[in-house]
Amino acid sequence: MRDPLVSIIMGSDSDLPIMKEAAQILDELSVPYECTIVSAHRTPDRMFDFAKVAESRGIKVIIAGAGGAAHLPGMVASLTNLPVIGVPVKSKSFSGVDSLYSIVQMPPGIPVATVAIDGAKNAGILAAQIVALENSSVKDKVKEYKDSLREMVEDKAQNLEKIGYEKYLSNNK
Amino acid sequence: MRDPLVSIIMGSDSDLPIMKEAAQILDELSVPYECTIVSAHRTPDRMFDFAKVAESRGIKVIIAGAGGAAHLPGMVASLTNLPVIGVPVKSKSFSGVDSLYSIVQMPPGIPVATVAIDGAKNAGILAAQIVALENSSVKDKVKEYKDSLREMVEDKAQNLEKIGYEKYLSNNK
Amino acid sequence: MRDPLVSIIMGSDSDLPIMKEAAQILDELSVPYECTIVSAHRTPDRMFDFAKVAESRGIKVIIAGAGGAAHLPGMVASLTNLPVIGVPVKSKSFSGVDSLYSIVQMPPGIPVATVAIDGAKNAGILAAQIVALENSSVKDKVKEYKDSLREMVEDKAQNLEKIGYEKYLSNNK
Amino acid sequence: MRDPLVSIIMGSDSDLPIMKEAAQILDELSVPYECTIVSAHRTPDRMFDFAKVAESRGIKVIIAGAGGAAHLPGMVASLTNLPVIGVPVKSKSFSGVDSLYSIVQMPPGIPVATVAIDGAKNAGILAAQIVALENSSVKDKVKEYKDSLREMVEDKAQNLEKIGYEKYLSNNK
Amino acid sequence: MRDPLVSIIMGSDSDLPIMKEAAQILDELSVPYECTIVSAHRTPDRMFDFAKVAESRGIKVIIAGAGGAAHLPGMVASLTNLPVIGVPVKSKSFSGVDSLYSIVQMPPGIPVATVAIDGAKNAGILAAQIVALENSSVKDKVKEYKDSLREMVEDKAQNLEKIGYEKYLSNNK
Amino acid sequence: MRDPLVSIIMGSDSDLPIMKEAAQILDELSVPYECTIVSAHRTPDRMFDFAKVAESRGIKVIIAGAGGAAHLPGMVASLTNLPVIGVPVKSKSFSGVDSLYSIVQMPPGIPVATVAIDGAKNAGILAAQIVALENSSVKDKVKEYKDSLREMVEDKAQNLEKIGYEKYLSNNK
Amino acid sequence: MRDPLVSIIMGSDSDLPIMKEAAQILDELSVPYECTIVSAHRTPDRMFDFAKVAESRGIKVIIAGAGGAAHLPGMVASLTNLPVIGVPVKSKSFSGVDSLYSIVQMPPGIPVATVAIDGAKNAGILAAQIVALENSSVKDKVKEYKDSLREMVEDKAQNLEKIGYEKYLSNNK
Amino acid sequence: MRDPLVSIIMGSDSDLPIMKEAAQILDELSVPYECTIVSAHRTPDRMFDFAKVAESRGIKVIIAGAGGAAHLPGMVASLTNLPVIGVPVKSKSFSGVDSLYSIVQMPPGIPVATVAIDGAKNAGILAAQIVALENSSVKDKVKEYKDSLREMVEDKAQNLEKIGYEKYLSNNK
Repeated sequence: MRDPLVSIIMGSDSDLPIMKEAAQILDELSVPYECTIVSAHRTPDRMFDFAKVAESRGIKVIIAGAGGAAHLPGMVASLTNLPVIGVPVKSKSFSGVDSLYSIVQMPPGIPVATVAIDGAKNAGILAAQIVALENSSVKDKVKEYKDSLREMVEDKAQNLEKIGYEKYLSNNK
Repeated sequence: MRDPLVSIIMGSDSDLPIMKEAAQILDELSVPYECTIVSAHRTPDRMFDFAKVAESRGIKVIIAGAGGAAHLPGMVASLTNLPVIGVPVKSKSFSGVDSLYSIVQMPPGIPVATVAIDGAKNAGILAAQIVALENSSVKDKVKEYKDSLREMVEDKAQNLEKIGYEKYLSNNK
Repeated sequence: MRDPLVSIIMGSDSDLPIMKEAAQILDELSVPYECTIVSAHRTPDRMFDFAKVAESRGIKVIIAGAGGAAHLPGMVASLTNLPVIGVPVKSKSFSGVDSLYSIVQMPPGIPVATVAIDGAKNAGILAAQIVALENSSVKDKVKEYKDSLREMVEDKAQNLEKIGYEKYLSNNK
Repeated sequence: MRDPLVSIIMGSDSDLPIMKEAAQILDELSVPYECTIVSAHRTPDRMFDFAKVAESRGIKVIIAGAGGAAHLPGMVASLTNLPVIGVPVKSKSFSGVDSLYSIVQMPPGIPVATVAIDGAKNAGILAAQIVALENSSVKDKVKEYKDSLREMVEDKAQNLEKIGYEKYLSNNK
Repeated sequence: MRDPLVSIIMGSDSDLPIMKEAAQILDELSVPYECTIVSAHRTPDRMFDFAKVAESRGIKVIIAGAGGAAHLPGMVASLTNLPVIGVPVKSKSFSGVDSLYSIVQMPPGIPVATVAIDGAKNAGILAAQIVALENSSVKDKVKEYKDSLREMVEDKAQNLEKIGYEKYLSNNK
Repeated sequence: MRDPLVSIIMGSDSDLPIMKEAAQILDELSVPYECTIVSAHRTPDRMFDFAKVAESRGIKVIIAGAGGAAHLPGMVASLTNLPVIGVPVKSKSFSGVDSLYSIVQMPPGIPVATVAIDGAKNAGILAAQIVALENSSVKDKVKEYKDSLREMVEDKAQNLEKIGYEKYLSNNK
Repeated sequence: MRDPLVSIIMGSDSDLPIMKEAAQILDELSVPYECTIVSAHRTPDRMFDFAKVAESRGIKVIIAGAGGAAHLPGMVASLTNLPVIGVPVKSKSFSGVDSLYSIVQMPPGIPVATVAIDGAKNAGILAAQIVALENSSVKDKVKEYKDSLREMVEDKAQNLEKIGYEKYLSNNK
Repeated sequence: MRDPLVSIIMGSDSDLPIMKEAAQILDELSVPYECTIVSAHRTPDRMFDFAKVAESRGIKVIIAGAGGAAHLPGMVASLTNLPVIGVPVKSKSFSGVDSLYSIVQMPPGIPVATVAIDGAKNAGILAAQIVALENSSVKDKVKEYKDSLREMVEDKAQNLEKIGYEKYLSNNK
């Protein structure tokens, strides 16, 4: 595989079923990436080492997912000048509101580009959009992807209009 | 001024006292930008026209601020493939929670890079970090800026340790 | 079928199990309607075209359902002068609070008539009440419907009073 | 004045500074209205009498504003078949969230068309849009009003682009 | 059965699985009660008739349960001078927060004695405590009930201390 | 003064500007009361002593107000069999939501009759309604009070209808 | 077993499946503890007796878990000078937000060291960290435990990097 | 001054008006402390260095205050084995709810002893209670302090009972 341009990290392997969606869409958009676990709270030294050398390793964008008191995206953002995308992973007690607030409410000086709760797929697309600014083949892939979204909705709409909601629902059970 | 790389738009001129902070930090970081009003709800055609040609005009990143049922960032993101940064502007009844949810909770396919409520300054820094990926002079400016943040905190810490909290507070009244 | 007076649209076919309740009650109230998918984010052009010609096609009321960062009802309202009824569809992380705030908190000038979360049935009744203002047969149907609601409660109350709560509950298991 | 088509009611005269905005916009849109106080909790009989005869008095739409445990819009909706627009008035402890939930979360069968917290102006516009369905002079007025909103934003945008944000802000202090 | 002193009403028979707990504890505390369905929104006339004659029928306390935009307890309180206890029934979208706010946030002049979400049992106990003020046999029953609660906790505590948490948990699976 | 039937207690004298409204309405309704400070957290022994003898001193109802982690109403309810009315006092950070949840969410067995945030006046009225069950002069007073509320609204409504909202508002500045 | 240094109490045996995690981690960290049920609301006298003698029995730290209107941690803290750790147990209606606010929002003078919702394990670790201040063998155990956390994450990270996310996820199904 | 046993740190000097209350109460309780600024986001290296050597410098307890996406308490807790007390500082948009969630919702393994929003005084008392476990003079000071709280309430209660609420309030204006 080519050298990774995007680094996907997460606080725990329990976040992987969500965070894998970032990997999958980056695969689809032909953006090389790496994927690993970095815990702000359990492996702070590992986090420091990771964040401080990411730029020099050729990484362009970091996607960081975490839940609860989610400090990983913000701490990584404090240790690098690369754009950092934060994915608030849904938590048990607050359905991810704690994750969201911990990630998005960063103080002036240290932004985290926050996506929706469990929005790992959008994190991948956003990373691709940033990479695409100077990479025309990724730009074409992003455009194709959005076109395919549009076509899928149009096909479904046409189908629904044609067969009516009752048949549509029973066909899609 | 050089051709703008960042476009700062907002739903209403009542958002300008917040959104101007994006402009100010982009000035400080030497990133050329433009700044105007585009209302999703009052000027939908203007929004369509703006979003569809932004990329071809050479814009790299769009910063969109809005409050309440804040549709501008997400709608612009649906009409362009550029990265869009959303700034939830504080609202009267919900202190910006409505703005935040309307901007960050985008469906799969259409990300908005959301920053903190009233976080226009961070939106500017994030835009600069994205521009900096292929622009070494902006990269240097971002690094200098973060170094200056660190030094400012260190100076204040040293001062507080030296004179104690009572004197520090009375000096800073 | 007669020309539709009400247009039921939704952002995704995943909203159909909820939104079909608007269609069902309009059937019951003999109000002709159409039903399709229009995504603000995935098919913005389709949404523009839909909203701009709805009035000239004879539509009187638009019912728009969407979830999460739910921009469809408000954007359609910005593109037409018809009354638009918004249905906040329950979302995974916020149980529909994000949908509700995104729909109800519209800025001055562009109202959306918002109903309860997942309140598609009430959206249909509200549309019928508006149509009924100039249509006495729909007016009669609405009156009949509300009478039937009252009678159903009265029957249940009478039954509960007669047989007691224990028997009532075991009968309705 | 012509016979009122819209009835604006509120739970308390403390809601009048908000609810008067519905009256003002109806004046601007040339829709005849009436305006009074009806308290669900302090004058339940008055509320019953009001709601039961509104339709026969020629009223087409009822706008009801209330705060806190805001029962007026829903109770009026239960007593009439006219469309009822609910305005959640901002409350002291919950900033209107209690008002909003009390109004919007109506059970199946009895819709209330809810607008934003303190959204009396939009309630007036929505009422006018409903009246406009069978009244072409109101329809023209609504169209003019929306055009004027668009033009106002376009003028401000042009001005901001021309003089820059610093001058714009100092001009509008 | 003796003449009821407490009236248990609810907005829908879907509330009965919760509201039956009020009946059960009143049975246990030997307080005579009645139990029926009264919907504020579907049967407003029935609600008016019920509330206006409750006092003259010998009722001392009314327990009213409802969910969502829960207007029943407050409306009944506006139509009688008897103490009204409100039970916010858990709703689907807000887990009962909408029910709670709709019931507890009553305006000055019209109190509703609100208990916890789904707190029908406590509503029954509170009603019994009020009845007990002038009824020494109910007073004794309430005292016995609270003593039995204390003893149950003490027994469990003694058992847990004796056998340890592991055995305790496996015994109570 | 006659022996008090109602005891008004609060966790801190900072609650007095709110809690005095309970005293004022009890004065108006001719219900004898006492009023003092009992802190669950700072004077737990005092709270125990107070709650355990209240009933034997002839008290019929206890009104307890507290803010933040508001334990006073629930703890007093655990120590007496009298009905306890809880007043959640508005707090600085949560506007009283913390107070409300701490008071209303009592476990099965120990009810607290909770009123609105800062709802001390309604606590007084509720206490009077309970006292009135066996006291016809208080019953008359409560009835008079509610009649006066109705008349006040009717007078204001008549005035508003007569002079219009503009004059009404300028008269009441 | 040695004399307990930590006392784990909870309001109900329904809290035991959560609170046992405090016991388990204290076992792992070799800190002697006791574990029992003390209900603030059902056994207030037992709570008073427990809290007043805990210090003289040699207890150093109290861990108190409770849900809903969770008064146990704060009331115990008002009755002892020992540090009290509060565990907000997840509740049915508010997912533990009510428990959290009831525990953490203590007034000045009476702190409760609050951990996450259902955070009994962390309560145990925090208690051990306090005991460790003057007990070097517990200090070593805490250090070992944290080292093991770090190593576990590092092992998982290494594995994920080596086999990729697809294999990792299918191995851990 | 004697060697500090408690270290008070905060993310920004804007937190000092709150955090100084921890210093003041530690002065009153004769616990030696230090006080400085350590920003997780602006000075991550300083934070690492601070946290890693705190224990070896003789510190027993760390009090860390921060607002918004408040990562300082949790990150320090991940880098030391000392007990860490977190103070959520009130923020502009969420009144400190974001601060609270970011601090209290720590994952298993890394506890933060969280106090109320803006609860710096209680953080100081909690630190003193921990120090007091092995320091009898601090233990006496804590006891004295709590006694003085009790006496203050008792004096106020006596005064209020004696002079009545009207005079009490006018005396304390």
